This record gives sequence, C-alpha cells and structure tokens, in this order.
Amino acid sequence: MNKTKVGIINVTGYAGVELARLLHQHPEVVLTSVTGRSAAGQRLDRVLPHLSGIDLTIEAELGDVELAFSAMPHKESAQEVISLLERGLKVVDLSADFRLKDAGEYQAWYGFTHPAPELLERAVYGLAELYRSQVGAAQLVANPGCYATGAILALAPAVKEGLTGADIIIDSKSGISGAGRTVSLKTHYSEANEDVTAYALSGHRHLPEITAELELLRPQPSPSVTFVPHLVPMTRGLLTTAYAPLTGKVSPDKKGAEELIKLYRDFYKDAPFIKVIDFPPHTKYTWGSNLCLIHPTVDRRTGRLIVISCLDNLVKGAAGQAVQNMNLMLGLPETTGLETLAVYP
Amino acid sequence: MNKTKVGIINVTGYAGVELARLLHQHPEVVLTSVTGRSAAGQRLDRVLPHLSGIDLTIEAELGDVELAFSAMPHKESAQEVISLLERGLKVVDLSADFRLKDAGEYQAWYGFTHPAPELLERAVYGLAELYRSQVGAAQLVANPGCYATGAILALAPAVKEGLTGADIIIDSKSGISGAGRTVSLKTHYSEANEDVTAYALSGHRHLPEITAELELLRPQPSPSVTFVPHLVPMTRGLLTTAYAPLTGKVSPDKKGAEELIKLYRDFYKDAPFIKVIDFPPHTKYTWGSNLCLIHPTVDRRTGRLIVISCLDNLVKGAAGQAVQNMNLMLGLPETTGLETLAVYP
Amino acid sequence: MNKTKVGIINVTGYAGVELARLLHQHPEVVLTSVTGRSAAGQRLDRVLPHLSGIDLTIEAELGDVELAFSAMPHKESAQEVISLLERGLKVVDLSADFRLKDAGEYQAWYGFTHPAPELLERAVYGLAELYRSQVGAAQLVANPGCYATGAILALAPAVKEGLTGADIIIDSKSGISGAGRTVSLKTHYSEANEDVTAYALSGHRHLPEITAELELLRPQPSPSVTFVPHLVPMTRGLLTTAYAPLTGKVSPDKKGAEELIKLYRDFYKDAPFIKVIDFPPHTKYTWGSNLCLIHPTVDRRTGRLIVISCLDNLVKGAAGQAVQNMNLMLGLPETTGLETLAVYP
Amino acid sequence: MNKTKVGIINVTGYAGVELARLLHQHPEVVLTSVTGRSAAGQRLDRVLPHLSGIDLTIEAELGDVELAFSAMPHKESAQEVISLLERGLKVVDLSADFRLKDAGEYQAWYGFTHPAPELLERAVYGLAELYRSQVGAAQLVANPGCYATGAILALAPAVKEGLTGADIIIDSKSGISGAGRTVSLKTHYSEANEDVTAYALSGHRHLPEITAELELLRPQPSPSVTFVPHLVPMTRGLLTTAYAPLTGKVSPDKKGAEELIKLYRDFYKDAPFIKVIDFPPHTKYTWGSNLCLIHPTVDRRTGRLIVISCLDNLVKGAAGQAVQNMNLMLGLPETTGLETLAVYP
Repeated sequence: MNKTKVGIINVTGYAGVELARLLHQHPEVVLTSVTGRSAAGQRLDRVLPHLSGIDLTIEAELGDVELAFSAMPHKESAQEVISLLERGLKVVDLSADFRLKDAGEYQAWYGFTHPAPELLERAVYGLAELYRSQVGAAQLVANPGCYATGAILALAPAVKEGLTGADIIIDSKSGISGAGRTVSLKTHYSEANEDVTAYALSGHRHLPEITAELELLRPQPSPSVTFVPHLVPMTRGLLTTAYAPLTGKVSPDKKGAEELIKLYRDFYKDAPFIKVIDFPPHTKYTWGSNLCLIHPTVDRRTGRLIVISCLDNLVKGAAGQAVQNMNLMLGLPETTGLETLAVYP
Repeated sequence: MNKTKVGIINVTGYAGVELARLLHQHPEVVLTSVTGRSAAGQRLDRVLPHLSGIDLTIEAELGDVELAFSAMPHKESAQEVISLLERGLKVVDLSADFRLKDAGEYQAWYGFTHPAPELLERAVYGLAELYRSQVGAAQLVANPGCYATGAILALAPAVKEGLTGADIIIDSKSGISGAGRTVSLKTHYSEANEDVTAYALSGHRHLPEITAELELLRPQPSPSVTFVPHLVPMTRGLLTTAYAPLTGKVSPDKKGAEELIKLYRDFYKDAPFIKVIDFPPHTKYTWGSNLCLIHPTVDRRTGRLIVISCLDNLVKGAAGQAVQNMNLMLGLPETTGLETLAVYP
Repeated sequence: MNKTKVGIINVTGYAGVELARLLHQHPEVVLTSVTGRSAAGQRLDRVLPHLSGIDLTIEAELGDVELAFSAMPHKESAQEVISLLERGLKVVDLSADFRLKDAGEYQAWYGFTHPAPELLERAVYGLAELYRSQVGAAQLVANPGCYATGAILALAPAVKEGLTGADIIIDSKSGISGAGRTVSLKTHYSEANEDVTAYALSGHRHLPEITAELELLRPQPSPSVTFVPHLVPMTRGLLTTAYAPLTGKVSPDKKGAEELIKLYRDFYKDAPFIKVIDFPPHTKYTWGSNLCLIHPTVDRRTGRLIVISCLDNLVKGAAGQAVQNMNLMLGLPETTGLETLAVYP
Repeated sequence: MNKTKVGIINVTGYAGVELARLLHQHPEVVLTSVTGRSAAGQRLDRVLPHLSGIDLTIEAELGDVELAFSAMPHKESAQEVISLLERGLKVVDLSADFRLKDAGEYQAWYGFTHPAPELLERAVYGLAELYRSQVGAAQLVANPGCYATGAILALAPAVKEGLTGADIIIDSKSGISGAGRTVSLKTHYSEANEDVTAYALSGHRHLPEITAELELLRPQPSPSVTFVPHLVPMTRGLLTTAYAPLTGKVSPDKKGAEELIKLYRDFYKDAPFIKVIDFPPHTKYTWGSNLCLIHPTVDRRTGRLIVISCLDNLVKGAAGQAVQNMNLMLGLPETTGLETLAVYP
C-alpha cells in the first residue's frame, strides 16, 4: 500500500472541507492529519457530518505528513507555509501568499509586508495547464485564485498566440461559496438569495495574478485588463466571460470561430481537465468535478473575441486544482482521484 | 370617480400577470378586461391565485377599454396592435414588434415580414427617460426590452455627452422570469437552479434596440456593441455591467468618478425612477419596484468607464415601465401607482 | 392630513425593515422615527438602500410618536415596551415578551424572569382574526410569532368547533428570513441553500403560544401538540401542515371536505386577510402580501383532518400583522395600507 | 478485467442520467448501452454534456448486456421489463411497476391493468436494508420510490419492534428533481423557486408501497398512514418527518431517546448506507451520496416518536439504490462504486 500521508491546515473552511472530500476518495494518498482553529479536539465528522467516512480528529497542529495543503487565509498562510517548508514538507498553498512574484504587490493588494520574499521565486504558480513540469518539480505550489483560474484558462491560448489586442474585459459570475465560510451579511442567505451584485470595482485581489500571467504569456502588447467579479445566487460555480479585440490572425466569421476552437483544442491537448466545446457551457456541467469547460467564439459584428469558461470554484477553482497539483508533485498521473463526473442536475 | 378603463391582452404570461398586479393597485385606472389564449372563460384568480383581489374572468376578446396593453409574443402582437389601433385605442405594446424603426430588421432578427411598416415611425420607443414628451403624445408606445432598458439607461448619459469611445461591451445577468412562462428544459427548475450560462452569443434580439438608441443619442462614432446576456438562478432581477473606453472628457480617477456621478444625476434629474448611486447596486434593491439603480464609475488602471445598472426585469423591464408609459399617455403623473418600495429581503 | 405619527424600534432587523416598507405606503400614518442599535446616526436609505423613498435618519432613541412598534429581540423588548407604555404610547410588540399569559413560562422557554408580569394580562394577543375587538381597545398588543400565526389560523375553526381530537401534529416549513438577520452559519447562503432541516425538536418557543391559544379556543380535550419547524431554502414564506384526528362531526369523505371548507369560510367571514380555498396553496401566492391562505381537507383513508396554511412570514407572520393590529388600535379599517397583492412569480 | 456489462433504458430522465454517472465510476461493471426515446442516435455527452467522460451513443434498442436498469415511466416500464426478463437479463426496474404485490392496486393507483401479475410475486422490493438476501437472489428487483425509501427507513425499526401505535403521519419535503425532467409549469423555475407547496393530498402513489411494507414489518396493529408530500425549492434532497404515538416500550424521556438511537443502530448494524445520528440531519449532508441519515427521537411533552430521515432523492432515492441492488444481484460488496462522500456545501 504505502500511500503518501497528507494533511490539511484549516480543514473547516470551504477549501479545506472540499480537500477532505477529494483526498478521502484518492487512491494513492491517505489523509492522516487535519487542523482547524476553533474546532481542535472535535471529531471531523461531528463538525462536518457529510464527512462521515473519515475517521479523524481535528488537531491544533499538523501531524506527521509528507505533503500539506494550507487552506489558511492570506497572511496567516504564509507563516504556516514557511514552517512547513522548514520541516521539509511539500506544500500546496491555497491562499494568495505565494502567487505573486513581486513582494511589493502584497503591500499594495493585501496590506501586509511579505514575510519571505525569497520564497516567491521558488514558488510555482499552480496552473498545471501552463506549468505542468514546473509543478512536478516544485516543493511549494501556489494554488491559483478561482477567478484567476477561470480567466487565465479562458484567455491563455488567444493571448499566447497573439490573436488579441491589449484591451481585455473579464466579467465573472461566482457562486456564493467563493466568498468563503466566514459569516457576514453579504453571504447571509436572505441577502444573497434572489440577488446579483458586482463588487470590488476598485480592484479585486485576483487581478494582479491575472495580469501577471497574461503578461508572461505574451509581454507585448502589455495587457490592459478590466476585471469585474459578480456574486450570483448559487452555492458553487464560476462562469467567466472574457472580451478582447481580435488582431486579424483569426477572422470574425464562421471560419475564424472554427479555427479558434481548433487552436484552443490544440493548446490544451495535454490538459485532461480542459474541454473546449463549440457551444456555451453551463456551470452546472462542472458541479463537483475538476473540469473547466471553455467556449471561444467571435462576435462577427464587432470583430471581438468572446470566451466563456465554466468551472466549480471549490474544485478546479480551489481544492481539485490543489489535488491536481499534488498529483504532479508526487509523480502520479494528473487525474488520479479526480475522475468523478459532475453531479447533474 | 371616472377612472380610465384599461385592458390586457394575454394576461397569463409573466408580463401580463405583473401588469394585472400593478394596474389593480393603480388609483386612476381600472382594469376591466383581460384576455388569455387557453384560459379564456376561467376566473383570473383561479388561474392565478395571487390575484385574489381582482374580480375578472379571462376573455377571448378584449372588451371596451380606452387603453390596451398587448403582452402577446412578437409577431402575434403586431396583428393585435393593428386591430386595437383601428378601434381607436391607445396601445402599449410589450412585444418587440414596434421597437425598431427599420422594417427590414424584423426579417433579419425576428424572421417575419412586418405587417405594418408604416406604423414603425408613428410608434414611440417607450423609454420615458429619453422620450418623455413623445410618449405623452403617442397613440402607440413600444415598450423596450428588459435588457435594452438596463443597457440604454446605463450608457445613455455617457454616450450622449461623448465621454466614451465606440467600443462598448454589455454583459447582462438576468433572472429566469425574463425567459417567459412557456415551459422548456432551459427554464426547468432542476436545470436552471445552481447554474449560470451565457446564451445568444451570435446575437440577441435586444441588440438592435440597444445599438439604434445609442446611435440616436450620439451618431459619431457609431457604437460597436458586443452584448452577451446570461441567465442566473433567481426569479427576478437584471444586472447590466457595461464597459467602454473613456475619451478623456472625464479622467480615470477619483475626481472623474465624482464628475460622472454628477453628470449622470444631472442627466436623470427629471427621471423619478432612476437613482444614480455611488456604490454598486444589488438587483434585490429593486425587487418588485419600478426603480432602476445606476452606478457609473471609472477603472483607474485602464481608463475605462464601468457602469452597473439594476432593475426588476418584470417591472421596470416590462410591466412597470408599461404602466409608466400609460401614465404619460393619459396625462397622469409619471409615478402614479408605481410608488411602492422594493420588497426586501 | 393629520396623519398619526408612528415609530419603529430596531428598524434594521427584518421585521423592522418590513415595517418601514409597509408604513411608508400607509395612507393614514406617517413614519417619523426609527431607531437602530449599531446604525444610529446613519441615513436609513444608506443602510437599507431599497428604502430610498424614506427620508429618515436612524436614531438612538425614539422621537415623538403616538404609536410605536418594538422589533427588538425578546427580553430586550420588554424593557423598551415598559418604557414606551410609561410614555403613554400605544405599542405593538413584535417580540415574544407579552405573548404568554403565564410569567413562569418566560423562565422555562426564554430563560429570563419577566420584568413586568402585571402587563401580561393587559397585553392582547394580536391575532385579529380571534381578538379583533380586544386589539381595537388595547394599549399593548403582543404580535404573534410567525409559526404560531400559521398554526393557529390553520386549526382555530376545527378546534373551536370540536371537530378534532386532542392529538395534533404541526409540521411547518419556513423560509430562512424567519431566522432573522443576525449572521450565523445556519443562515449562511452556502449552508442553507439546497438544504432542508428540522430543528428545535426538543421544543420550539412558539409552541407555548400555539398550545395556549388552542386551549383557549376549546379547553377540552386539552390539546396535545407536537410541533416541528423546518427551514427550507427560500427567503420568505411559511407553509404549515397540521394533522388531527376527526371526532365524527364531519365525515372523512367528499361531503365532509366540503362542509369543512364551508365551516372555515364561515369562521373567517369577517377576516379580510384569510382566504379559505379548495386546493393546496403555495407560499408564493402570498409573497409580500398580508394574506393567509388556508386549505382544510380530510384524509379519507384514515379519518384525519389535514389543514395547509400559507403566509409570508415577514408580512402576515410579522410586520403586516403588526400594521393590521395598528389599524385596529387606531380605529382605521383593518386593511388600510395592506391591500397590495402578492408579487408573483 | 471481465467487467459485467450493464445498460440503461431511458437514460435521458433524471434517474437515468444519475445511473450513468454512478455506473461510469463503478469499478466492477461497464456501461455499454443506453437507450433514449427522442435522443436516439445522438452522442450521450452531447445531450448531457456533464457526462463527457462516457463514450456512448444513445440507441433505440438496448444492446448486449447482462443486467439492465429500466428508468422508463410506469406502465411503459412493465413492457420493457417483461421483454428484458424474456431475454434472460437481470433487471432493476426504477419505475413503480413491480413494487406492489397486489395487481389490483395498479388499477386503483396507476390507472392501468398490470400486464404481468405473475411477476409481482417474483419481483423483490429493492430495499436492501430489509431484503438484502432476497435482492441478492433476485432476477427482478423493483427499486422503491424515493418517498417510500425515506419513510420506510425512518419507521422500520420502530414499527418492527412494536414501539409505535397505528397512527402514523409522514410529512415529506422533496427537492424538485423528484418531479422528473418532463417540463411543466409546476417545475418551471420561476414558479417553483421561492415556493413551498403540499400536493397529492388525496393520496400519493408512494402511499401503498409505504403501507404495505410497514404492514409486512408488523401486521398488528395495521398501520393507519397519512402521507403528505411537499415540494421545496432545491434540486436534490428529501427530508421525511414521521410521527407516531409511542406504545410504552420506550419512554418519552432522555433515557427513551437514547434507547431509540441504540435500537435503530442495532437494526441497521449491517446497513452500510444508514447512519443513525443523535442530532437533526440536513439533506445537504447526503447530496450526491447514497447515504440515508436517520434521527429518531421522542417528543417528551406528548409521548410521541419523531423520526427524521434525509437522503438524496436521485441517489438513495433512485439511481444509487438501484446500483446498490445491482451490487447484491451480482454478488459484489454492497458499497462498490458508491463510496464517494456527499458534495458539501
């Protein structure tokens, strides 16, 4: 057997909860330790009854594992990660604390001085579709933000190939679980139900990730990205609609649309979780699965690229992507433990 | 009392249902006749039990009224309207059949030859915020589409004043009632719940309305509009996020954002149902009311205008706007019968 | 004009919010003062943007009014009410603090010693359908709990007429707004959405109200009531399913079912907000309105009475009923300001 | 490998869709043939994009398999099943057509003359928790109705042990997917959202199953069952609240409640999908899984038994239970392919 022992720091948030579900059904690793802040000392399946098959008690400190997931909030996560790395563990950090390369951006976007700027270069941005081999060799993987995952996957092929100009609009619609498990009026059922709202109009924290990655894909012209996230009344799901002018490499007609599909399929030919489709996807097609569905097309009237991507924000947008990264870090097939289909309807 | 008698053609669709609710509480008109296709002969409050206060039987033909609302589907509505006009009635048509000025567009967008092209010029586009006096003098008012209402109101001040360039992106999120009451897999609860999807990527029928009206507001540069509607899992509500480059008349900074708010408030100073606000609105703030909330702002990083508008698609996006138009056509104060606040939460 | 001035204590909870909406559209009273705990000093329409038509600032203390609504939580409300009565005001208390006649029950059910037991007899239980004249003469009205309203209205005619035996089961399904606006994991969108749960199996606080009122309607046999409340994923609405054995006064057949309807209609003939119907009601038929729909029927196989009632928990279950009580206390027609139809769908 | 080939008749309804998901992830069988009425000839993952991992075309006739699931509607299913049995296949029928032993009941409850009354005795009622060995030996298993599953599992231990009297009330709350995939106004999103309703008050078709099985568990006293199903606005989930008088074998106090839990746990000690818990369950704890959570307790005030059960109506209430039955019929461990945890939140 000799399964790899893995652990979760802060199992009681939604990313942690979902990690526990996915790791429990993983055939090659075994979840042996979970920590939680206020719930330490309680049985995991008492705090989270749907995890009734997992026989673990929530601990204050992580036990003996080979790889750890940190599902702590940003800033606090960095401290945990530093300590885990010192113990020699492999780490997947689901927070934002190692996603940006420029330490100064943490002050600007997150309001704290990064405690370990030297680690930022070592950390690999855990979007396996772009950095498969680097993830495989990494000790520390920074799991991308949910919005960033949906946006970068939607745009990467077009940007990389220079199909689009600099003016990019990203309009995202997320389920409420994306806002986390912390209680607030914003996530109160009666306030969030039957409601749609835009937020973070002055700049969402996933924007620097998106911009940095798009710029790495094609530095010129430097992308000028407007990103507006929205909350929609559902638990899971993230749909991203991206708009950009076409540069002329594909034409804004039926033929161009077909070329786009082909180009996207080629770009993602080794990516088992990406499905490029020729019709508009529904977030529901990805519910509970690690898939990201992408539909690139052209607006014939205006000569623009439109790309729609869909994913489950807690799976491909968080815990599933973290397991995908873990698989690569452990030398396992990328899809191990992630093959289950979406639950529909 | 001498209240004006009004009637509704096709009361059993959602626009018709909502008209019945609003007209019943209107102090200056009386709803005396309603028609419905399959339900003719049945009591209105048996078919629609929430209308228990209205003592009417659904008829096959409209009775004696002075003003009629047609809530028929497009193409069928035109025939009804022609006949109503011949009877000398004032008419508010909630279908698309008299919204476009160019008869040829009906072939292109709706797939039928318009039966009365000569009426298209006489019909007034029923967006009172732009055409108050014309609506007041009209015999036939074409009530705007829900998406068109949200989009045009969001952009009109900026376009009119030349604050924006031609490249306009309109990303709309609508509740499911916008798709009507006809049953389909698309509106099946189990399919639409916990789901977001984009649709009509090859061109939604509200696009020609939007483009035509923006062009009338400022012919040069001719607007190049990409419009993508989305369905989100809620019954009512329509949030529109509009993006456009700024031309330099307002600056992409705090001062520019404040000037924008001021300019929008000035533009809508006589519009009782428009609230220009300095924070992102929620669709829920308009639930059941005729308000349209608008939040214009700037994206400082990219120099773009972002405008968010919210409304209830069945009220300001359909029946409420129709009553607002009726008020003007009858010489009543614009807000008569439409003063109730949103129901929240 | 000389409208009566009224005020709301704790306007920022859901009952307070709904009171503000209803009082604003009331033609005979004027809302002149509202208080709120943390929000004092802020404009009402800034804290609650849907109330954009109300020009009031939230105060720390109630201003000069003739009648006040207390929407404080239990225990705290009693203190407010005592002070309001001392000022000579008429009071509608939406908390539980004056609903029970036996002061000892407050210790048992609410865990505090009642500060003014002498007021319990003076307070009138504000179910106008049972106590219309007493409400009209009262200085202090204790507005019933939402569950109690649905349950008592469903059972009152049958119990009063001795149609049923003592064994009563009340199974209620409430929207999430019934749990209030205070944030908690229980009302977190992601936890409450796509979920149904039963709670308070060891005894919900509305049970003593229900039992006491049923016993007053018919002391023998003393009712033996099991009451289980459930939370269902919607914002508003309360459906109560009540079961009891028939005693033989009506027969468990078609004829008995028709007699039941007739008997219920007769019982409620003077109650403008009660509609007794011969088909199962939907909570949606009452959304935003003060109606309570009741469908009594028989189970032919088992000889049991089944009664379904539906209401909007924030209107007839709270704020609407409070306004109905206010109308009676001020000598106004019971329906004043409460005539608007349900918003559907 | 030599996996058993299995097929699904009518894969496009919700039970069929869910069977496809579960069978695809089953390690010991392989789904080789699926049929569908209108969709024959189309790729399965085109009609149902979430099944993108399944490489099958929908057929008009079932191919070569060893075991078939019929997910046809009642009456039509019987014809299919007869033909499948004649081919020598093992069959799990998800319709009602072989659930009742008395052919005459099909006329009364389903309005058709049963075409093969002789098969009713041979068919095994597929509630493995009661009929494990019989299911294992059966050629034809009649998969129970979703409501019947929740109700019988909630009551079986108490009824079997004679803890309860004859007067049983079953109040069930089901998600909308329980009403199937066929479009109708009842399941239209805008009608079903923000709504709860009771239905089938004159007798739901799952009642005869429930009554028959309870009577088999303990013939005396013959159970007198009132069953009222409700629709609540969620896609999946079924919560059943059952009430019955206690006979005195357990006492209505803390000690009795603990004995109940113990007795239930003992009754279900060999049932891997039943979790007897000492707190009220949430349907969400079972979302997507084959678990049934049961919480039996006592109402101390009235001496009644209250039992709450929760399950996913499409899994333990339909497709998951069918796979559980298949496992037993094929001599596999009961839990094979059904170990995944609920997806939460």
